[in-house]
Amino acid sequence: MFKKIAIVGSGAIGIFYGMRLALAGAEVRFLLHRDLAAVRERGSLILRTEGGTTELRPAPVFGSTAEIGPVDLVIVTLKSTGNAELPRLLPPLLGRHTAILTLQNGLGSDEMLARLFGPERILGGLAYIASTRTGPGEVTCYQSEAITLGEFGRRPAARTRELAEQFTQAGVPTGIAENLEQARWEKLIWNVPFNGLAIAAGGVATDVLCADPRLRAEVRHLMREIQAAAARLGHILTDDFLQKRYDITPPMGAYRPSSLVDYLAGREVEIEPIWGEPLRRGEAAGAALPRLSLLYALIGRLVAARK
Amino acid sequence: MFKKIAIVGSGAIGIFYGMRLALAGAEVRFLLHRDLAAVRERGSLILRTEGGTTELRPAPVFGSTAEIGPVDLVIVTLKSTGNAELPRLLPPLLGRHTAILTLQNGLGSDEMLARLFGPERILGGLAYIASTRTGPGEVTCYQSEAITLGEFGRRPAARTRELAEQFTQAGVPTGIAENLEQARWEKLIWNVPFNGLAIAAGGVATDVLCADPRLRAEVRHLMREIQAAAARLGHILTDDFLQKRYDITPPMGAYRPSSLVDYLAGREVEIEPIWGEPLRRGEAAGAALPRLSLLYALIGRLVAARK
Repeated sequence: MFKKIAIVGSGAIGIFYGMRLALAGAEVRFLLHRDLAAVRERGSLILRTEGGTTELRPAPVFGSTAEIGPVDLVIVTLKSTGNAELPRLLPPLLGRHTAILTLQNGLGSDEMLARLFGPERILGGLAYIASTRTGPGEVTCYQSEAITLGEFGRRPAARTRELAEQFTQAGVPTGIAENLEQARWEKLIWNVPFNGLAIAAGGVATDVLCADPRLRAEVRHLMREIQAAAARLGHILTDDFLQKRYDITPPMGAYRPSSLVDYLAGREVEIEPIWGEPLRRGEAAGAALPRLSLLYALIGRLVAARK
Repeated sequence: MFKKIAIVGSGAIGIFYGMRLALAGAEVRFLLHRDLAAVRERGSLILRTEGGTTELRPAPVFGSTAEIGPVDLVIVTLKSTGNAELPRLLPPLLGRHTAILTLQNGLGSDEMLARLFGPERILGGLAYIASTRTGPGEVTCYQSEAITLGEFGRRPAARTRELAEQFTQAGVPTGIAENLEQARWEKLIWNVPFNGLAIAAGGVATDVLCADPRLRAEVRHLMREIQAAAARLGHILTDDFLQKRYDITPPMGAYRPSSLVDYLAGREVEIEPIWGEPLRRGEAAGAALPRLSLLYALIGRLVAARK
């Protein structure tokens, strides 16, 4: 079990998983920035789910990683657009055996952390969750909570199973990915088309994309481009898998993908990990990705134009 | 010379070319709808160019084609989204030898008119002009005036040269297309990317598209898709031609393509002739048009969402 855990990036994802682990007995410390004063005044972190509301009191919140000090596990839940801060933020948290788990979206964070702090420390995870920050230090989770964990550039090891077990004991259904990179491409099968078209089609929820015959066809074409790029990199995603990823969407109703929420709120959008890096890696491997290329160009412009 | 001419669709294009022909001696009658009362009250049509302002007084304007009666030449300058009106509008204008010239954008109008009124009547033209309606029965022309004429499904004939001569005498530089369909694809090389991306990239002028490296690359990719579709249909557009069509654009500055102007004004956009029909014809001929397909789907949704 990882006893001392630091959460770097206390937005919706960070507070959610950090609180789950804390309530199950780990000593979790949260790095806060914007919400620090408000949370200290209230004295608690708050988690709202269908099962009810949970408070973590007193709130183990800190304004710097130096105050937190070395831990057994760092969970990185910063939005990846803030990754330039990691070389400054993480060193005070790292002991000799500290592991680093990034739950960030898309491609690129695993490699960046590996370069900075050594590949042997790095685990990656995919959060299949719909949660949102509903106030300072307060998170509401609407559906799912599951994560999938894997090792960077290696098959799963003892610590992978240990951490998966710890999450599961904390109430988070946790799977293990034999191949982390493949798991990231699997998640992109959904994120590339739905997060992307939600923005490019004028700021619409997933129900609009599924109801429009032409946009629905474009979703499937984009899925096949990602499938082809992944295949060039050795990751086989079946047609049946693509179909299942599509099929989960209509029942979600008017769901707003995280990138759309960020876009509409005027916040930074994770353009590079979700569209830019998959495009570059896929093209470098020889895949033809015309729709992804156009989508990436449009989103870049649409996001820049808000400023 | 075509003596009696009816202009069906008295927007910027119709009034511009109709006035040029009238001022050169033809008996031109304009069908007006929205602007009829205002123009009758003023008593004139007005054309503003760099060279000065010209009035046509009294204004030969009519509220129905029945009042106009049979003519030698019908020039169709309706926006193509109004083509469903043509079966009702045109018959009163047609004598046994009446020719019909459509100056409408994109693909589809030539064929529709040929089906309705017989292929032998039909000429098509491409208007390379930047003009706008600046008031009721009033048009301002900013640059160019040129048109290119061709015969529907035939090589140019005596009447084609006659009409080109008549336009040229009226001050409109007029070329003759050996192959009308090829000329339409040549115009699409510019309209598909620039009109399309101007809308899809958030409502931006052409200078923004040319200044953004990724969007500029997408312009070229879209040009190459149109080139490939045209080639499948037997129309060879050279790389040099594509480059020249691109090169005219940066000097145009912050130019708003007609589709963007329509889009921003909440008016109908010529989606089918510019994107839908080229996509269908190209795909039917075996061309791969992934970027055009995505662009078409996005524009359809963006335009529909304004309502």
